[in-house]
Amino acid sequence: MTFTEDEYSRRLAAVRERMTRQNLTALIVTDPSNLYYLLGYNALSFYTPQMLYVPLEGELYFFARAMDAAGAFRTSWLPQDQTFGYPETFVQRKDTHPFVWVGQKLRELGVVNNFSHGQVGLEMDSYYFSPRAFEVLVKALPEYRFTDSYELVNWVRVVKSPAEIDLMRGAARVCESAMEAAFESVEIGRRQCDAAAAIMSAQVKGTDAFGGDHPAIVPMLPTGAGADTPHLTWSDQAFIAGETTVVELAGVFRRYHVPMARTIVLGTPSTRLDYLAKSTGEALNAVLDAVRPGATTSDLAQTWNIALAEHGLHKPSRIGYSIGIAYAPDWGERTVSIRTDDDTVLAENMTFHIIGGMWMDDYGYEVSEAVRVTDSGVETFTSFPRHLLTKE
Amino acid sequence: MTFTEDEYSRRLAAVRERMTRQNLTALIVTDPSNLYYLLGYNALSFYTPQMLYVPLEGELYFFARAMDAAGAFRTSWLPQDQTFGYPETFVQRKDTHPFVWVGQKLRELGVVNNFSHGQVGLEMDSYYFSPRAFEVLVKALPEYRFTDSYELVNWVRVVKSPAEIDLMRGAARVCESAMEAAFESVEIGRRQCDAAAAIMSAQVKGTDAFGGDHPAIVPMLPTGAGADTPHLTWSDQAFIAGETTVVELAGVFRRYHVPMARTIVLGTPSTRLDYLAKSTGEALNAVLDAVRPGATTSDLAQTWNIALAEHGLHKPSRIGYSIGIAYAPDWGERTVSIRTDDDTVLAENMTFHIIGGMWMDDYGYEVSEAVRVTDSGVETFTSFPRHLLTKE
Repeated sequence: MTFTEDEYSRRLAAVRERMTRQNLTALIVTDPSNLYYLLGYNALSFYTPQMLYVPLEGELYFFARAMDAAGAFRTSWLPQDQTFGYPETFVQRKDTHPFVWVGQKLRELGVVNNFSHGQVGLEMDSYYFSPRAFEVLVKALPEYRFTDSYELVNWVRVVKSPAEIDLMRGAARVCESAMEAAFESVEIGRRQCDAAAAIMSAQVKGTDAFGGDHPAIVPMLPTGAGADTPHLTWSDQAFIAGETTVVELAGVFRRYHVPMARTIVLGTPSTRLDYLAKSTGEALNAVLDAVRPGATTSDLAQTWNIALAEHGLHKPSRIGYSIGIAYAPDWGERTVSIRTDDDTVLAENMTFHIIGGMWMDDYGYEVSEAVRVTDSGVETFTSFPRHLLTKE
Repeated sequence: MTFTEDEYSRRLAAVRERMTRQNLTALIVTDPSNLYYLLGYNALSFYTPQMLYVPLEGELYFFARAMDAAGAFRTSWLPQDQTFGYPETFVQRKDTHPFVWVGQKLRELGVVNNFSHGQVGLEMDSYYFSPRAFEVLVKALPEYRFTDSYELVNWVRVVKSPAEIDLMRGAARVCESAMEAAFESVEIGRRQCDAAAAIMSAQVKGTDAFGGDHPAIVPMLPTGAGADTPHLTWSDQAFIAGETTVVELAGVFRRYHVPMARTIVLGTPSTRLDYLAKSTGEALNAVLDAVRPGATTSDLAQTWNIALAEHGLHKPSRIGYSIGIAYAPDWGERTVSIRTDDDTVLAENMTFHIIGGMWMDDYGYEVSEAVRVTDSGVETFTSFPRHLLTKE
């Protein structure tokens, strides 16, 4: 297992404490990152429905497709007799759904009592829990009063343990190696897909000490005029002299993500790009200086806004979010956002991706740092030149 | 654009014809593969909510996060004035949701009439349409009577156009190159992550003629005793002499996927593995021989069952599914399954991944072919030795 038995126990206890506060008698977990956090379960099996049943007291039960449940013990600490596989006949059918079977099994297991059971939390905005799955569950378990758990487990994940920080430091080494590969391979005349191949190779290979893992998002490489659009991937076109490429990627070690964004210009930057880069860099530095326990995310966003305004610039989107475990399609934890209307108080061992992404008309610039809140300030996970990267 | 204007028109017409048959006056599309199919829109932006409004008659409207909507025209044919970006303040909030804004905008656009509006189809089992998004939509548009569209667009996608087949033939070249990389890099003493890096590099690089694209699922490499578990990815452990590795990967060209599975043994295969491989290979050949227009998927599954039974073997899961466009986390189209209780009649230019995956206790074997139904039989997209691959 990646973590000690003690660490898994502490995680479960923290989840249950939060369940008590939210008045939940049970929680149904479907988000693959939360399943990994609580069980260690790690497989690309979440394209068919999965769920973990977490009661306030008593045994946990995990449900997955039969072919996946059978091997769950290879990555999960949960005993095999608490892991159940729904039959193949429930997979991708119009007339039924795996959670019909799961509801029946929960009933057999005796965890469905009566209408006084209390409230059961659901991850109503999880990527791999569909409206159909929700409706089936409501129908299969009429005794339950379901309510949104509002990313309950995700919120427990916000503050990292020392063991998690160690993994993120490993991911940082992978991230540096991948950004080096990007800088080397983004060059005039080379196809974008060839550069992306070099980057992904570096991400997956990792370093001698830290074998790489698959990133929740593949490298994003908007280039040329498309660099004003943040989430474009690569094409088979070649990089062009004078053009700008924005690179956003993550290093991953045992599912923990450390992202980084940098901007590469193939030639001499235009005056407007140079100005944008310097202004954005100063604003990012100001934000990093403001990170400390007790500050709020809203403080950081204000710092950013003021620093940018000094240069006549403005960026309406959030400038960062909590990071850690991730699976496709996002490496954010979907909890803390660094923006003016988020008042999370920073605490030691929270980890964020702080990103200055400036998408102007026809050009753009990105620079970011993945950070840990220390006991008195900030630790940047990676070490890589924090300015516009130029190359002939 | 990847396809002609005519081809996009034909697709929309086919979707609307099916809408009429399903008694829908409008359809709300959220699946990124369906968005790509109908609009050409291609970005890794689906981690925040997106939707396309398709009325039976009249204009289409596309909604995405403001930073993504602004650049949508770079990949989508839809005019920019039919593309709307919801403000950043709606992203990942507990107290609101992007579809609150979208509902209001649909109202402003005049597409919300009254209770006689009819039925509006929703993709109730799409990966990126959450129960919270569903509830918000129901509340924001009380005039609408929503109903499940049952993968309406996915079903239109089942039969491919000649242009799509061309792209899949390109993806097949990428697939062969990636499997060659797998065969070369899975070797005794090498770390699994290093082999995975070589495979992903080949996938993303592609060939000179066909630049590679990111696969919906990263290479799966269950090895050793774990080869009995289909959806494990790699670790940083080295490959061990005598052990078996199951490789499942896809070549991708412009989002079109052509998958392939093979099994590599590092040494001399055990008698039981050899027997399993030969039996499975014969059963796969029998299925390929049975593919022709007019046959049913159930016929194929029966052929498989009978061929396996002759060797005393049995496999309860489906042996294939429809393939084409895909985004994470699955490269299947979630429509046709090749199994005994699916009676889809095969037609020319349907495309499937036919996969013999045998997960026994402590060992396993996989072999597959991606195929096209021709006017009289079958075309296998890739050309690669179809047996147990052995290496010293």
